[in-house]
Amino acid sequence: MSISMYAASVPVLTQMLDSLSDVLSKAEAHAVAKNIAPEVLLQSRLFPDMFPLTRQVQIAADFAKGIAGRLAEAELPAFEDNEQTFAELQTRIANTKSFISSLNVAQFTDSETREVVLRPGTPKEKKLSGQAYLLNYGLPQFFFHVTTTYAILRHNGVEIGKKDYMGAY
Amino acid sequence: MSISMYAASVPVLTQMLDSLSDVLSKAEAHAVAKNIAPEVLLQSRLFPDMFPLTRQVQIAADFAKGIAGRLAEAELPAFEDNEQTFAELQTRIANTKSFISSLNVAQFTDSETREVVLRPGTPKEKKLSGQAYLLNYGLPQFFFHVTTTYAILRHNGVEIGKKDYMGAY
Repeated sequence: MSISMYAASVPVLTQMLDSLSDVLSKAEAHAVAKNIAPEVLLQSRLFPDMFPLTRQVQIAADFAKGIAGRLAEAELPAFEDNEQTFAELQTRIANTKSFISSLNVAQFTDSETREVVLRPGTPKEKKLSGQAYLLNYGLPQFFFHVTTTYAILRHNGVEIGKKDYMGAY
Repeated sequence: MSISMYAASVPVLTQMLDSLSDVLSKAEAHAVAKNIAPEVLLQSRLFPDMFPLTRQVQIAADFAKGIAGRLAEAELPAFEDNEQTFAELQTRIANTKSFISSLNVAQFTDSETREVVLRPGTPKEKKLSGQAYLLNYGLPQFFFHVTTTYAILRHNGVEIGKKDYMGAY
């Protein structure tokens, strides 16, 4: 009655990064078709103190990288958060996918009991088991930003549906 | 290097149902404080052809019930989708939590390999292993509706933050 930490992370993250890429492609095509400047969508947000689309995508990618990389105890690649176009966001997603696909199943051995420290050295430092880090922290965060990206685009009239969000499963 | 199907479902769903309940409480308090009719928030949506808040909550609760109940091979309680107030949505969430907390770990034994059939008897019928049903279908769907509920409320100016969405982990 068990599943591997690998199965609960890498394939799920990959599925949703693929769907995120697909959703952004449709948003870009929508902007072209409707003669909307890409920045209008890329900088759109649901409320003034929420992050805009571009940042939502960056954070989603960061969680994918961080979740998989930390569980695998791999060195995390640094990305600069300087994406300003749909093409650059696609590259960010592709680089993130490339990193997590480089991790192998064996690196996740015992990761469920491995300690993960969130915000180390800060007053908000929190220690979690790898299992709690993945299930109760990482995935909820990751899905939050993937869904919010979708929500911003739907709010702007981009014609995407739940099927696009779900990707291939 | 493994985690149980139970750990990957019931506690995660419970955590997020608790946060959903908390977010709705804050939304209700916001409506009272700002003299906003509750229906304005309950019927709010991000785009005309998206579901309103109430339906997002109902679907989130349905996925929580369905994911946990199907994996455990339990009979699913029927809820009528007739909630019209914040209080009724809280009851829906409480009933859902009550159901999934009634399931025990042993019921999830071998659920990762058990076949789950989505939309049985329809042209869109799809068969998945319990593992894929949970990780690649159920959780992405569940988080979608929890996050969209949050997004609708943020878009309406309710003062909630990521911390509220995350709940206790």
